[in-house]
Amino acid sequence: MAKKFLSETNLKFLLHDVHDLAALTDHDTYAQHNKKLFDMVLGAAMDLAKSKLYPILEEMDEQIPELVDGTVKVHPAVRDLMKEYGEGGWIGAAFPEKYDGEQLPMTMVMAIQYIFFSANYGAGTYPELTAGAARLITSFGSDKMIETYVPNMLAGKWQGTMALTEPEAGSSLADITTSATPDKDGSYRIKGQKIFISAGDHDGVDNVIHLMLAKIDGAPAGVKGISLFVVPKMRLDETDELTGNDVVISQVYHKLGYRGNPITQLSMGENNDCHGYLVGEPHKGLFYMFQMMNEARLGVGMGAVGIASAAYYAALEYARERSQGRKLGKKDLALPQVAIIEHADVKRMLLFQRAIVEGSLSLLLQCSIYDDLVHLLDGDAREKNALLLDLLTPVAKSYPSEMGILSTSQAIQCLGGYGYCKDFPVEQYYRDVRIHPIHEGTTGIQGMDLLGRKVMMHDGKAFDLFLDEVRHSIASAREVLELAVYANQLETTLVELQKVTKHKAELSASQGSEIFLADATLYLEYFGIIVIAWQWLKQAIVAQRQLEKARRSRLNFLQGKLFTFRYFFAYELPKTTGLATRLLDTETVTVDMETSFFAD
Amino acid sequence: MAKKFLSETNLKFLLHDVHDLAALTDHDTYAQHNKKLFDMVLGAAMDLAKSKLYPILEEMDEQIPELVDGTVKVHPAVRDLMKEYGEGGWIGAAFPEKYDGEQLPMTMVMAIQYIFFSANYGAGTYPELTAGAARLITSFGSDKMIETYVPNMLAGKWQGTMALTEPEAGSSLADITTSATPDKDGSYRIKGQKIFISAGDHDGVDNVIHLMLAKIDGAPAGVKGISLFVVPKMRLDETDELTGNDVVISQVYHKLGYRGNPITQLSMGENNDCHGYLVGEPHKGLFYMFQMMNEARLGVGMGAVGIASAAYYAALEYARERSQGRKLGKKDLALPQVAIIEHADVKRMLLFQRAIVEGSLSLLLQCSIYDDLVHLLDGDAREKNALLLDLLTPVAKSYPSEMGILSTSQAIQCLGGYGYCKDFPVEQYYRDVRIHPIHEGTTGIQGMDLLGRKVMMHDGKAFDLFLDEVRHSIASAREVLELAVYANQLETTLVELQKVTKHKAELSASQGSEIFLADATLYLEYFGIIVIAWQWLKQAIVAQRQLEKARRSRLNFLQGKLFTFRYFFAYELPKTTGLATRLLDTETVTVDMETSFFAD
Repeated sequence: MAKKFLSETNLKFLLHDVHDLAALTDHDTYAQHNKKLFDMVLGAAMDLAKSKLYPILEEMDEQIPELVDGTVKVHPAVRDLMKEYGEGGWIGAAFPEKYDGEQLPMTMVMAIQYIFFSANYGAGTYPELTAGAARLITSFGSDKMIETYVPNMLAGKWQGTMALTEPEAGSSLADITTSATPDKDGSYRIKGQKIFISAGDHDGVDNVIHLMLAKIDGAPAGVKGISLFVVPKMRLDETDELTGNDVVISQVYHKLGYRGNPITQLSMGENNDCHGYLVGEPHKGLFYMFQMMNEARLGVGMGAVGIASAAYYAALEYARERSQGRKLGKKDLALPQVAIIEHADVKRMLLFQRAIVEGSLSLLLQCSIYDDLVHLLDGDAREKNALLLDLLTPVAKSYPSEMGILSTSQAIQCLGGYGYCKDFPVEQYYRDVRIHPIHEGTTGIQGMDLLGRKVMMHDGKAFDLFLDEVRHSIASAREVLELAVYANQLETTLVELQKVTKHKAELSASQGSEIFLADATLYLEYFGIIVIAWQWLKQAIVAQRQLEKARRSRLNFLQGKLFTFRYFFAYELPKTTGLATRLLDTETVTVDMETSFFAD
Repeated sequence: MAKKFLSETNLKFLLHDVHDLAALTDHDTYAQHNKKLFDMVLGAAMDLAKSKLYPILEEMDEQIPELVDGTVKVHPAVRDLMKEYGEGGWIGAAFPEKYDGEQLPMTMVMAIQYIFFSANYGAGTYPELTAGAARLITSFGSDKMIETYVPNMLAGKWQGTMALTEPEAGSSLADITTSATPDKDGSYRIKGQKIFISAGDHDGVDNVIHLMLAKIDGAPAGVKGISLFVVPKMRLDETDELTGNDVVISQVYHKLGYRGNPITQLSMGENNDCHGYLVGEPHKGLFYMFQMMNEARLGVGMGAVGIASAAYYAALEYARERSQGRKLGKKDLALPQVAIIEHADVKRMLLFQRAIVEGSLSLLLQCSIYDDLVHLLDGDAREKNALLLDLLTPVAKSYPSEMGILSTSQAIQCLGGYGYCKDFPVEQYYRDVRIHPIHEGTTGIQGMDLLGRKVMMHDGKAFDLFLDEVRHSIASAREVLELAVYANQLETTLVELQKVTKHKAELSASQGSEIFLADATLYLEYFGIIVIAWQWLKQAIVAQRQLEKARRSRLNFLQGKLFTFRYFFAYELPKTTGLATRLLDTETVTVDMETSFFAD
């Protein structure tokens, strides 16, 4: 295993220097915290990640979850970890003090996720899912429901899940068929199948609480008839004892990676004895679920960043230690071979990975700040942050996920043949990260969400707010001599983005939704590069200013930041040119291609 | 498993209609063959692939090679397959009749490789490696050596390998240390270590013949002191009995994919009793080995194409069968869900895969035609084909390998969550294909070979010949009304390619080799897209002409060809814009980045 899976220096640079986390403590909700306390929490998370999560990364990949006698057996450490997550306050980190939580900002929760996910993504997902499910209950459930479930969930005794997907309804949630029939005791009888449920069952906890979408008998068709239920694996009987709730684990999937967490298929109500408890009002289930879904989408982005981060540091360590060849132009064989990190092509591969990891991490923290401000502010200020968060969520989910594939692939490439072997960790990261463009809405779904919904909503209001944010950063960059040229480059790209977006909006009006959205995935890719360029410019402004008065030991970090920024603007941002060409083109080959033409 | 792993219609379209394979039979060497016979051979290869290779694809992935009592145990079918490869003439397909071969053109051998590799890459590599090693012996070995080894190799009784890499010498072959000490019997005593040797040992054969690079005592330093040896696992003693040759298998690597073939570490001469037999003259080993290496590089490209092909057909089959959602703009929930192949974004992903597979396959066959003509022609004509083959080999190796990663990844994406599960074959393809940018020279090495050597050699003669070839195709395309606009698009790109290449040549003169080659990998990517665009234009010319007089049953295939061609020019070719921007830029961040800046 590599020595390192993330940079604490970088994490703190982003949290404090770029995104000013401590400014949140100006609000009453977080007034009891301060920067020093935040750093202590991060330190504690690092301790847990280093001592408990990272050492079992490979074991959890090898000892895959198996279905034994109706229960999913996972690595024995999961039970200890859940206890630790509960007792250490990690599951309840963002919950208000009234629920015995630490009342930390979401930005801190995301930073903690980054630490856990880069140490061991599979192990880090159990508390994330549990917290998300518990937060759905505290947001929309009754007091009794909160009392019944939330304390055990935050204590790590009960696992939480989000149960949406069905065999015939994955991307198309309108088509779910799991049914809920009102029972005389006020509960509902649930009947149906759910597939691909992360942590859908395991023996590291005493109970599993599914936040499940189902349709009440007679509900309207489509998404307007979807309700949200708590469906526990074990329900409390009249004497408050746990009893089976007719939830059967029909299979645990064997998969390419992400093996530390069991993905399961569930069958509810085979004996007509599965009770579900309605959360909030009927038919509002999808609306409620989107709270957890949006959080989970940021979590997926963070998962990809975490894995890519660990792969990057493994590649970096190897590149420093492995000698091969000589510098170009210095081919004297009497000279010893040099560490491969000396080769420009290897530095390019490392800069690429660092650019992806640190650019994406910055975006995810940016989104969390918006998220925190939504909960702290009112009126226009609240709306502004909500719109920016909405707009950027599909990017923050997809950019790290898609680029995480390429980033971990470059980590393998840095190791050459060894990268392909089980003796080194990068092949696992490459397998693990491949789930991210799929779960919580595929990249295709995110593209349609961005272009079809978010960019267009309220007459482009979110999009305009985003342009304002970027132009604000551009203006700041122009005040820094070394950055003016990059500020201009981003401004030019921004003008082109407006042109592309206008073109798409016109297509929507003139050609209908199929042609309008045919290249939504490419628009997402295009938009994503620009968003990350903005995040790099923000980082460069801070780094360049710090450089002048930095202590000696910090110079290398800051120079590395600025070089990685330059890398992004020289190598990644130009990719928008080809994408813009495509997005402005009127060729509709993917719409016109008839399915019969795929035949021989 | 999917029903199909390749399209025979497409393979024949490329072989016969685009690349005019049968024209080779105008030469005496191949006069005994004809188109019908070629098709019969392809049919027999398909039968073998379908009946023996494809059914054990997953088994060979699961039952991984293990080192047991000094021998590598592989799937038991390998022994039967080797017998079949031998008796069926598959190993000797390209060998002259005097060696009991079928004397088929290399282009046919490549087509057969495509069939085997797409059915089961691991299983297909055993005969490829054996043939390559045997051809080195027939090309450069003595008559006695040929007699001793070649018949058993072509019969599938003895495995052949190429043994280059050492623990401290992978990309840097100049640094190999395996030594060869002259012995009084005319052989050499070999001492050293070799790593990452494909099929380096297995129990499917009775002997393994390593074509191994080593340095004779006192040889010049670097590549000029490398000699080529035959180092058998078992050597023939005085009584012509096989006896151990002090070659120890020190490990078999456990790896991400490509598990059907054991990659091994070998230790020679631990007891000072390992005999090697010099091939050809001393110190010419690397020159000789490049014959096998260049063949192997095309083989790697073909391996990537084969795997991407199988993944594409698996994704296509799934996309036809899986229903999900409704057409955009037709959201009536009373309508049944449509097959996902109806969605433009899914068609885009399928077109991408088809464009990669069929474009790359066309290039590899183009290269094989050049290769055949090198052996059939003399003088300038021979030189022309040799230069084109030399120039395009790094592209034919790397483009399919790098794009194969993305293509198999898109296959996973088409299947969504199922694509990530072991129940479907695409996750294996994704793992298998990842080896290709690494073995037989990494993508970085190929980039330096292309830009630093091939493009520049003989004052750019190969590069100019390539431009002539493409302009010839552009001229033909301009005669077809529907293709004129695409011909112009490629011409514009070609002008830009010349500009970029000139800029690089100037850098080489003014800035030295480090800056000149810092972006060689990107130049390779850039050049590769243009090469594949050319291959697509060649296909489109033929398809468009056939369309007018095609029988009804062929229309879908031809329309599919033309739509995939349009896809390539609309979606892939514009990527050159951003790459050209980068390649013309003078920012030298990857050279200037100091290694200390990677620290925190």
